[in-house]
Amino acid sequence: MKANPALTEPVGEHLYQSLAYRLAALIECGTLRSGDRIPSVRRVSQQEKVSIATALQAYRLLENRGLIEARPQSGYYVRPRSLSLPAEPGMSRPVIRSRRVDINDLVMRVMHSPIMEQASLRTEGGWINFGSASPNPDLLPTAALNRCLSSAARRHSSSANQCPFPQGELQLRTQIARRAMEAGCALSPDEIVITGGCQEAIYLCLRAITVPGDTVAIESPAFYGFLQIIQTLGLKACEVPTSPREGVCLEELEKCLDGCRVKACLFALNYSNPLGSCMPDWKKAALVEMLAKRGIPLIEDDVFGDITFDKERPKVAKAFDRQGLVLTCDSFGKTLAPGYRIGWVAPGRFFERVLELKFVTSAGTTTLPQLAIADFLANGGYDHHLRKIRRAYATQLRQFGQAVAKYLPPGTKITRPNGGWVLWVELAAKVNALELTELALAEKIIVAPGPVFSATQGHRNFVRLTGGAPFDGRAEKGLIRLGQIIERLAR
Amino acid sequence: MKANPALTEPVGEHLYQSLAYRLAALIECGTLRSGDRIPSVRRVSQQEKVSIATALQAYRLLENRGLIEARPQSGYYVRPRSLSLPAEPGMSRPVIRSRRVDINDLVMRVMHSPIMEQASLRTEGGWINFGSASPNPDLLPTAALNRCLSSAARRHSSSANQCPFPQGELQLRTQIARRAMEAGCALSPDEIVITGGCQEAIYLCLRAITVPGDTVAIESPAFYGFLQIIQTLGLKACEVPTSPREGVCLEELEKCLDGCRVKACLFALNYSNPLGSCMPDWKKAALVEMLAKRGIPLIEDDVFGDITFDKERPKVAKAFDRQGLVLTCDSFGKTLAPGYRIGWVAPGRFFERVLELKFVTSAGTTTLPQLAIADFLANGGYDHHLRKIRRAYATQLRQFGQAVAKYLPPGTKITRPNGGWVLWVELAAKVNALELTELALAEKIIVAPGPVFSATQGHRNFVRLTGGAPFDGRAEKGLIRLGQIIERLAR
Repeated sequence: MKANPALTEPVGEHLYQSLAYRLAALIECGTLRSGDRIPSVRRVSQQEKVSIATALQAYRLLENRGLIEARPQSGYYVRPRSLSLPAEPGMSRPVIRSRRVDINDLVMRVMHSPIMEQASLRTEGGWINFGSASPNPDLLPTAALNRCLSSAARRHSSSANQCPFPQGELQLRTQIARRAMEAGCALSPDEIVITGGCQEAIYLCLRAITVPGDTVAIESPAFYGFLQIIQTLGLKACEVPTSPREGVCLEELEKCLDGCRVKACLFALNYSNPLGSCMPDWKKAALVEMLAKRGIPLIEDDVFGDITFDKERPKVAKAFDRQGLVLTCDSFGKTLAPGYRIGWVAPGRFFERVLELKFVTSAGTTTLPQLAIADFLANGGYDHHLRKIRRAYATQLRQFGQAVAKYLPPGTKITRPNGGWVLWVELAAKVNALELTELALAEKIIVAPGPVFSATQGHRNFVRLTGGAPFDGRAEKGLIRLGQIIERLAR
Repeated sequence: MKANPALTEPVGEHLYQSLAYRLAALIECGTLRSGDRIPSVRRVSQQEKVSIATALQAYRLLENRGLIEARPQSGYYVRPRSLSLPAEPGMSRPVIRSRRVDINDLVMRVMHSPIMEQASLRTEGGWINFGSASPNPDLLPTAALNRCLSSAARRHSSSANQCPFPQGELQLRTQIARRAMEAGCALSPDEIVITGGCQEAIYLCLRAITVPGDTVAIESPAFYGFLQIIQTLGLKACEVPTSPREGVCLEELEKCLDGCRVKACLFALNYSNPLGSCMPDWKKAALVEMLAKRGIPLIEDDVFGDITFDKERPKVAKAFDRQGLVLTCDSFGKTLAPGYRIGWVAPGRFFERVLELKFVTSAGTTTLPQLAIADFLANGGYDHHLRKIRRAYATQLRQFGQAVAKYLPPGTKITRPNGGWVLWVELAAKVNALELTELALAEKIIVAPGPVFSATQGHRNFVRLTGGAPFDGRAEKGLIRLGQIIERLAR
């Protein structure tokens, strides 16, 4: 197959990311080794035909990611790998095939049994929860938001207690449109539909685009919530090989599109759950272009996009969309208010259909929580809040990752996401994650087994561990115990 | 066809209702005429083999409904019809057939165009809204509810800002189960799932029971929201002849069940929208029995059940359900908080499936509005509130009905619902309701045209007029103008 230029050549402002990506690949594969001096900025700018500034930006990015380090008077060197930094899982290698999804019973059994819900989500009775991807309650501005809610109830008393507009409150849509600029998007409030969380947004998008029997391309592993929607809508899934760093492999995706008659793609491009991958922006541009050529819609879930540990928030794919084929779904469930369940979708050319489905499915979204969030976004210091929680989650996740590496058996592979708070952990091939989940549950430790993140209950020796909560002594004990159980299962 | 005994013989406590029903039928069809003396209580108790008490109860019911009157020392007489009381529309006579629904575009165009939403639902700019079935804002306890909301936000601050349980808050489910006793139901909180309004409840039920291509039996006319769900799920509808007084005709329904391979029934048995019919409780029992014999589920919408003008709230069909085949859907959108969008469903034997679908479709329902409603139900004087709004709506609807009779052309037929606040109005055969709707809209008057309440856009000379708002001078002017437009169209 001849290489598709869209897949290898970055566009416009993404030159430096692309350059960094290629240099990182040289380090990953060992061409450049720990302690090696890498070419000077001037040299690389000549070789790669980019400006000095672009080369410098690429080097800074690699430095931020801990791959290289600058030594005074001497240049840039590949950073020695910290001894405590375990290996990462490699790119997933699912068989590329369109297949029925069979996941709902398993998810309801292992992720949402009444006992787990009652006992763990609200951390009563000594449970240790590495299983749910909920944010740390201490990092939510709940009191401030609730003040906004009470104030909205007073100010809009009667008008807020009418049948909601199906599209949602204009005030909130306006704030969302303003903030979308951070993610590279020029959106109008008119293009946005408010939903009951991101799950409803994605449900509506899939309903708008597909009919039963259609195939949807997804990441491998993929969030089980996506898989559940795909199953209950009678759709098929085609799992695409995905790198824990850069997201879906575009070459492999191209094969899927051609081979599986993909009707839509459903990806979490920024800090995906559970993999933590973040597709570089230039690669997003290439993805959007590839799909546009074929007229295939892309549904993107950006719920973790705001929880970046980088200096700049990654863009959404919609930033590169010129044909209205990208449907961006997001919510405030990770950053502000999981309890409010307010999400949104910018459905591009599918706007009318999504709005109609929203109306038919649930008529509209509860009004006051919308107004409260709009108020907080306008006046509550959301940017300050984001800076705070980004730092906190970066610290939490680093500590958690180090503890996982320390207490889980040697050979365990762990992702190193640059945002969000979930880790994807590869255990010895012999370990059955479902068995592990049950044994852990018996000791009041909750983990999310790999099979719930797969259309066919694969990833059998993987678990997702979440480090959303502060890492404390109790969590440490939980990891120690988990390590012992895994050790036993691996024998 | 041999008469099915279940259709003609009442059970248990419903004897008196059945007796009243038969006597009313004699009056309706003219066997007993205005001014006629009707048999004494003693006589009828002997004839019908019921107790004196039962016969007396039946007579009192007829008296309450204005059909008979007691004259001192003389007995009961058929009441002379008030001259101002216009005729009622007769039973609908749709062709009994399973058919595709084609209603969405029409509904979005005539019921939910942006101009109508912005300009009318919040009654700005001189619009007169007879078109929306929203409650009168002055009859909602908005301030008290919002206080409950603010208080819940303070009391449950952190715990209420976590991912909601898919099933909904136990406190609210407990209150709902307690109140269900009023409607004749013994429900446990565990059997209830909280939803984003009644529309989502019905959507989930239909998703749980049917697959695309299945046929759903509905009333004729039926609420357009039902028809929209049926259409977007790729289902077919079979419209059943329905009386404006007693709801669907069971004999005709039986033909549908046999002829159209009905997979589920979807009825609003108490003060249906738009017909206002209320199926007598004994007939509900017969309906449940008829469906149970065939194993066909009944989804019932009870959103207007609490807005009764009778002394006692009518029962729900679930009160007679012994097989878990009745799925009762309800909300607080008519009595308390349309803006909160909190509904619920008791899905009987389909509980697991409905809960799973709720989880997959929207993950859960926003928490604080649930807690606020639970608090109001427990401590806010809901019964007192209900008594107040029942009286108010009864008065409003009577005044509104009289004005409709006065200002719309002679020959207009109008329903006389005993609950809710919508009127179903039959115009001269020549009048095209869609044309009327457009002409009225041009004069800032909103009505709901008959065709949106029909799978095939029938009921072309009907409109639904809502008397939810207090009847004032502006509404009067609107009716006068509407009458003039209708007059012109009827020429």
